[in-house]
Amino acid sequence: MSEPEPIHDIAHLGSVELFTPKPDQSLWYFRDVLGMEVVHASEPSVYLRGYGDYAASTLKLTSAAQPGVGCISWRAVSPQALERRVQAIESVNLGLGWTNGDYGRGRSFRFHDPDGHLMEIYYEEQKYVPPPELRSTLKNLPMKYPARGVGVRRVDHLALLAKDVAGNRKFAQDILGFQLREQVRYNKGSTEIGSWMSPTAVHHQLAYVVDVKGGHGRLHHFSLWVDSPADVLRAADILAESKVFIEAGPSKHNNSQGFYLYSYEPGGNRVEIYSGSYLVFAPDFEPVTWNEEERGTGVYWGSTLPDSFINYATPDVDAPPLQVEGQTPTFSIFF
Amino acid sequence: MSEPEPIHDIAHLGSVELFTPKPDQSLWYFRDVLGMEVVHASEPSVYLRGYGDYAASTLKLTSAAQPGVGCISWRAVSPQALERRVQAIESVNLGLGWTNGDYGRGRSFRFHDPDGHLMEIYYEEQKYVPPPELRSTLKNLPMKYPARGVGVRRVDHLALLAKDVAGNRKFAQDILGFQLREQVRYNKGSTEIGSWMSPTAVHHQLAYVVDVKGGHGRLHHFSLWVDSPADVLRAADILAESKVFIEAGPSKHNNSQGFYLYSYEPGGNRVEIYSGSYLVFAPDFEPVTWNEEERGTGVYWGSTLPDSFINYATPDVDAPPLQVEGQTPTFSIFF
Amino acid sequence: MSEPEPIHDIAHLGSVELFTPKPDQSLWYFRDVLGMEVVHASEPSVYLRGYGDYAASTLKLTSAAQPGVGCISWRAVSPQALERRVQAIESVNLGLGWTNGDYGRGRSFRFHDPDGHLMEIYYEEQKYVPPPELRSTLKNLPMKYPARGVGVRRVDHLALLAKDVAGNRKFAQDILGFQLREQVRYNKGSTEIGSWMSPTAVHHQLAYVVDVKGGHGRLHHFSLWVDSPADVLRAADILAESKVFIEAGPSKHNNSQGFYLYSYEPGGNRVEIYSGSYLVFAPDFEPVTWNEEERGTGVYWGSTLPDSFINYATPDVDAPPLQVEGQTPTFSIFF
Amino acid sequence: MSEPEPIHDIAHLGSVELFTPKPDQSLWYFRDVLGMEVVHASEPSVYLRGYGDYAASTLKLTSAAQPGVGCISWRAVSPQALERRVQAIESVNLGLGWTNGDYGRGRSFRFHDPDGHLMEIYYEEQKYVPPPELRSTLKNLPMKYPARGVGVRRVDHLALLAKDVAGNRKFAQDILGFQLREQVRYNKGSTEIGSWMSPTAVHHQLAYVVDVKGGHGRLHHFSLWVDSPADVLRAADILAESKVFIEAGPSKHNNSQGFYLYSYEPGGNRVEIYSGSYLVFAPDFEPVTWNEEERGTGVYWGSTLPDSFINYATPDVDAPPLQVEGQTPTFSIFF
Repeated sequence: MSEPEPIHDIAHLGSVELFTPKPDQSLWYFRDVLGMEVVHASEPSVYLRGYGDYAASTLKLTSAAQPGVGCISWRAVSPQALERRVQAIESVNLGLGWTNGDYGRGRSFRFHDPDGHLMEIYYEEQKYVPPPELRSTLKNLPMKYPARGVGVRRVDHLALLAKDVAGNRKFAQDILGFQLREQVRYNKGSTEIGSWMSPTAVHHQLAYVVDVKGGHGRLHHFSLWVDSPADVLRAADILAESKVFIEAGPSKHNNSQGFYLYSYEPGGNRVEIYSGSYLVFAPDFEPVTWNEEERGTGVYWGSTLPDSFINYATPDVDAPPLQVEGQTPTFSIFF
Repeated sequence: MSEPEPIHDIAHLGSVELFTPKPDQSLWYFRDVLGMEVVHASEPSVYLRGYGDYAASTLKLTSAAQPGVGCISWRAVSPQALERRVQAIESVNLGLGWTNGDYGRGRSFRFHDPDGHLMEIYYEEQKYVPPPELRSTLKNLPMKYPARGVGVRRVDHLALLAKDVAGNRKFAQDILGFQLREQVRYNKGSTEIGSWMSPTAVHHQLAYVVDVKGGHGRLHHFSLWVDSPADVLRAADILAESKVFIEAGPSKHNNSQGFYLYSYEPGGNRVEIYSGSYLVFAPDFEPVTWNEEERGTGVYWGSTLPDSFINYATPDVDAPPLQVEGQTPTFSIFF
Repeated sequence: MSEPEPIHDIAHLGSVELFTPKPDQSLWYFRDVLGMEVVHASEPSVYLRGYGDYAASTLKLTSAAQPGVGCISWRAVSPQALERRVQAIESVNLGLGWTNGDYGRGRSFRFHDPDGHLMEIYYEEQKYVPPPELRSTLKNLPMKYPARGVGVRRVDHLALLAKDVAGNRKFAQDILGFQLREQVRYNKGSTEIGSWMSPTAVHHQLAYVVDVKGGHGRLHHFSLWVDSPADVLRAADILAESKVFIEAGPSKHNNSQGFYLYSYEPGGNRVEIYSGSYLVFAPDFEPVTWNEEERGTGVYWGSTLPDSFINYATPDVDAPPLQVEGQTPTFSIFF
Repeated sequence: MSEPEPIHDIAHLGSVELFTPKPDQSLWYFRDVLGMEVVHASEPSVYLRGYGDYAASTLKLTSAAQPGVGCISWRAVSPQALERRVQAIESVNLGLGWTNGDYGRGRSFRFHDPDGHLMEIYYEEQKYVPPPELRSTLKNLPMKYPARGVGVRRVDHLALLAKDVAGNRKFAQDILGFQLREQVRYNKGSTEIGSWMSPTAVHHQLAYVVDVKGGHGRLHHFSLWVDSPADVLRAADILAESKVFIEAGPSKHNNSQGFYLYSYEPGGNRVEIYSGSYLVFAPDFEPVTWNEEERGTGVYWGSTLPDSFINYATPDVDAPPLQVEGQTPTFSIFF
């Protein structure tokens, strides 16, 4: 009984900022094709939300020279929890300091993960109040179902690339208090290829996978939730009719049991439409570890993911893929 | 910042014990029709599980003279959390004492809720280890998908009747640390008809609704999860072909947005096949309260629930429905 | 081998004309809520289509003083088949004569069914040619999937009320050549309550059910197809968010195995969103007949249809429901 | 009006005989994994059916040295239609003569298609009469939904390889009276790669695709229907848990809009689990023709089919793939 208790200080992924060199087309993609709602704009950013998100905004789209991920925001469970996490982050010298807070939020504490991605924690959050024409007939739904395009319900997770997966994974576990859910380890467990973690019952809200080009601070994908695999299938039709490039799926991962569809938004970032997966309730959940053979192609039903799935991330870098401890990484390493 | 922090001591609903006067037929229902797996038997009980449950067993079926609910088990997040909850329960004099633990578990602390339902908390849990023939090809799935009958994935929640909803709701909030998600209140908010609560991101794992016959310790329904509304529709076909009585649904509740189907297992208990709903991540979630008019029929799409949905519970009692503060309760009060 | 061969002269239901006293709101319903496309307008009518319909138009919406059904159009399989059906219709003195053809079609022969509904047969049909912005990325899809509202794919069937079901059923079988699929017969088979027929593999494209108010020429419902029951569920959400009245469903009929949802378009006509059901391929299909008891509530899973489902049709008439040979008709008689 | 009328003499695909060198395992696959019902056995064959098939049997599984397709049976719409088709077949000297009929049927007339596949036509068919324990609670369902494994509803179609696609396609159109639905033609239309045809509203019940190994009488795949794409996804889980090889899918074809999943039954034959697609009602349907570029990978959402999809068929032959008029055929040619 002397073991330390699990940390429950982070409530959930609050929002993600995406950079786009084509802001108008990216906005078309998220608003018209995916059916998100624009709630605010402030140069050079536009703020959006899924119809089921309770917060005012969960996606910030920022005009920039290159695609990639901007600030990743996590909500704390309480003001005290926020303070505890700030102290933990400062104890490893990754803190950047307080901000006055972005749209719809109170102050936040910004920091870098070890790989250099920008993150922040905040507690005060303004709940979304819809204008009359967007009010749902369901009192427990923050906003009317849009019935436009895909109709994504809420943000689900994001996957980041990192040069050192183990170091970033430990930071997320020890400093942020996330629970490790699944891992891919090669070479008899000695090479950590990817780790999937979460502060909630949702299978993962943050993943780190090895950057095969040796970059830093890059984004593999950002993921939005729809209610069922059937909705992912319909999303594929809508993306195809909208002439948006579908990189992979719809299909089912073995890792996470997630039902996925990967497309590139016009700015270049990989966006996943996601459903299925499984919830984790065990406080002592034993992380599931996959080796090279077990991981296979990463697709449960046996098909493969394309080369781009491992070689392309945002911002793109012009470098040959690295060798990972004596072997060429394969499609199987990513999620 | 001086507000008390939310309590996170209960991890999730661990298992439910159901009493049945027809144990063989009830076993047929859960094993052959719903597709659950029998893992253990010890007179007068049989222990079952859904294919996605991580614990050894999540449903205990016990032969008894009358249907109803036996012990409702909650898992704590840590040994320390278990101790804290025991102290809280003892502080309100509802504790019954420690047991050596049921099948697949360490010791538990038993207690009554104010209405008299038997509950327990435990921490030590044996994870399910499938025999070779039931091992899944998915490393992160505790057991092979059964492909038999409905194929329920896991336990989701249960709804209890209580004479005093407010008192039991407060116990669950204050003493167990559950978060209140939704309520039905009549008479300008003064009459508490039902409350839905949860210790997890799942919308509710415990509901209290008023016992219109003034009974105590009764069960409204026990609920099992399937992956999608489409699976609930298929379940309806399977129940119909199995000549199991379907009381209501498939349809969608306004409260919880849950997609439901209610049947009676042969022993008489109401069992729900459930999907949809929404996850709650906000640490400061504002409970959604419905009044008489907003609650309507309880069905989002406008149909009604049958009389039995309010008048029947287990064990059944021979009494006329009570008047609830001057008005006849209607179908709209239950969930 | 001396039996007459089955008639295959009618290819399918071509289009339906609906009258509406609220043309703007009805247009909003079909275009914005159901996602149909407007292809043509000519006072007092607007012509629409589902994205999967191959013909130019399949729904004609006509401004009128009262709701109800206008001309019901059937396509013949060949010019010769058209001539044969015209002769058959004239042989029973129900012919009205030739027209020059409506939008997108060649000449048609108009007639009345015995109950007085207006119908026509035609052969020449203009296939839909989408404007560039509505062209699908699928070469075999007549039009882009709209991703707006419900997204109904095509017309499916319609159900008419008739004072004399048997007489109209015989007309459809003998004169039009439809195959009888299912029937409801009460009083040991002597009272014909409803008949479902089709000229295609689709379960039914035309139904006659008894008009309990003794009217003539009335419409029970017009039905549009979506690809799956999951799409019907989503349609229910969209209708609810659009504040359109949902009369019944989503649920599953026993007759036809159809998965249904009935709403009233703003003009007052009952419109069904429909999927599931089963295809019929047998040239000697034996009609399925249901008696009072077998038919039950008409809902496979056991719930009931509301009173309005039997008492309301368009145009509405102010008359008490008839007695049907000694018994009050119940909800179970309609489909 | 002097054009010949369309022929409607064939009602539908009646049954398919598959050869298997592993009869016990193949039976396990169709009965236990796919959920078909065994209705009859007569050495060396076992007769099965889908729960929604109206005929006694739709699949004949015959023990043989090699996998492949045996007799393909088509039902005529009438005795007269049967005679007319026999005359047409004999007019091109492909007739083999009359049999006394297989299990559950009257006499049949056997013939070869130009490529050498064995076929037959019959009219008299015994409708399935279930034993009491398999009777459905739905009066219009031939048999209880099995709730075992995948639960395929009915046979849908089959795809045959042919050395000369055009010749066999013309035979099916002109002699059998099938309607051409879609084609793949390369080299500016001069090389016919594949043709999809049907005698019913179902998109295709017979496909011919070029045999890249120059064989004769071979089978590409046999296809069974499930009610929705969601059921195909569930089927993939069940096949994976049963350790059955999934060659491709679940995904969506551009040709036919079919939602597919290809697996190999243990005897070696490729079996498709299929849903979606679209119905064809137009008597003058204009066949959709795809060239090399339009056809792409054959997968609507952009992924690819594996090499085996073009190089493997049953019985397998040991030959290098042919060149098709100057170019290597690609995955895109098959359906």
